[in-house]
Amino acid sequence: MQVERVCIVGLGLMGGSLALALRPFLTHLTIVDTSPETRAAAQELADFVTGDLVEGVRDAELIVLATPVRTILRLLTQLPAIRPDGCLVMDLGSTKAEISRAMEALPPTFQAIGGHPMCGKETAGFSGASADLYRGQTFVLCENGRTTPPITAIAQEIIATIGANPLLLPPQTHDNMVATTSHLPYLVSAALMQTAAAHGNEQLWQVSASGFRDTTRLAGSDPQMLLDILLTNGTAVLTQIEAYQNQLNEIKHLLLTGSKQELADWLHKTNRQHEIYKNLKREA
Amino acid sequence: MQVERVCIVGLGLMGGSLALALRPFLTHLTIVDTSPETRAAAQELADFVTGDLVEGVRDAELIVLATPVRTILRLLTQLPAIRPDGCLVMDLGSTKAEISRAMEALPPTFQAIGGHPMCGKETAGFSGASADLYRGQTFVLCENGRTTPPITAIAQEIIATIGANPLLLPPQTHDNMVATTSHLPYLVSAALMQTAAAHGNEQLWQVSASGFRDTTRLAGSDPQMLLDILLTNGTAVLTQIEAYQNQLNEIKHLLLTGSKQELADWLHKTNRQHEIYKNLKREA
Repeated sequence: MQVERVCIVGLGLMGGSLALALRPFLTHLTIVDTSPETRAAAQELADFVTGDLVEGVRDAELIVLATPVRTILRLLTQLPAIRPDGCLVMDLGSTKAEISRAMEALPPTFQAIGGHPMCGKETAGFSGASADLYRGQTFVLCENGRTTPPITAIAQEIIATIGANPLLLPPQTHDNMVATTSHLPYLVSAALMQTAAAHGNEQLWQVSASGFRDTTRLAGSDPQMLLDILLTNGTAVLTQIEAYQNQLNEIKHLLLTGSKQELADWLHKTNRQHEIYKNLKREA
Repeated sequence: MQVERVCIVGLGLMGGSLALALRPFLTHLTIVDTSPETRAAAQELADFVTGDLVEGVRDAELIVLATPVRTILRLLTQLPAIRPDGCLVMDLGSTKAEISRAMEALPPTFQAIGGHPMCGKETAGFSGASADLYRGQTFVLCENGRTTPPITAIAQEIIATIGANPLLLPPQTHDNMVATTSHLPYLVSAALMQTAAAHGNEQLWQVSASGFRDTTRLAGSDPQMLLDILLTNGTAVLTQIEAYQNQLNEIKHLLLTGSKQELADWLHKTNRQHEIYKNLKREA
């Protein structure tokens, strides 16, 4: 690796998987995490494990911020005082526009780039982490006013090392896209969970199968991560909720007043769109 | 088995899995399917394979109707002419109220019971069928005016043989419950697929991960099966769409006017409800 001393802040699913994937290629790996249990679990993985940000980032060439978004925003405001000499910074946060603005506010001694690997898993936290989580997945990079050729080259090297596919996007474009592909799916899933739970009938779960399980899987996502996402991407998410509500109204209209043929056409169109999406994912 | 000669009409995922699971216990198995490809694939499995309903059901003690719902309704009106002597009838249809009424309209020479195994799979059709599809899953039974102790005992024996868990429900109760746990999840998933497709941006799929994949999985369901479901359970489905829309409106309201604490509370409540559902499924 072009960098020898790396510090990963936040050893959840994302930071943990990055640590596991990069470990064989790093001279010195430091982990910063606020949870004593996670720190204990990380002892064998890292050269140095600490709960103290100041201590952890002191000697790092590259700091990777892998916490929920609003924690990343707070850490970015603290870095100039902790590291007056500056350093390289990258993040793995779920939204990118606010983080890009916070990176631009860093002093010119810092070089920074935003990152967002497009992968998730049912099991959050370090216990769900694995070295191959990123393999074959898209890894979005967002440049900002503090992005330089060296930090871009290092981010690209990391992405190549973990087997992901880089995709450069403007931060707001990224946020608009994930509002549709990630944040709306969470809300859609959560609203379904709430609708079913509102019945207050435990027998309902007996009459549910893998379809309900998969469509409500995201309702089990980490509330802290989601809160940060919704607070930093609210406008784009609201736009997508409204687009989604229009689709639901169209279905309702079809069920109430449509002919059998119109309903059949809509069902076939949906099936075809799913087929197109699946084929494009398969080719990717 | 208490019955020796069984005819399964419709060799899709459900009928095919039933055929595979029951095969070792049956003296004589007949398959009726309209698809020449499916009939070819079924040659080794069954004693007799035909595309002709009249020929297929002629000597059966038990007929299992495993086609989409409206085909089941049509077949039930044809059976009295084909089998004036009557016989035992069971079905695997996705909705039960209309089928129960059609079973009740059979002559008293028939004994009939409604069935609905609560399981599904990404791969529809006989190619997705497997002998263990039903193992550990709920198998709903719905009695009607033509249900007798012998047909109930045979249905229970079949359910025990394939390793499923029987659950007796009134037909309309079943239909109301699956409107929430199965039909609404399909529409929720389909509307999400449509919302994303409306962007007309293929790059969107690169910025999508397993969350989008799982939440839109049901959008790929068989349009013919869904059409029959929506046409025979429209009222219950519309009620659930409206309950779902209320949940979405609550989220939107929270995002627009709620405090951080209110939003956090809602996210935690959703996560807890998902946890309760997962634990109850695990215990079941």
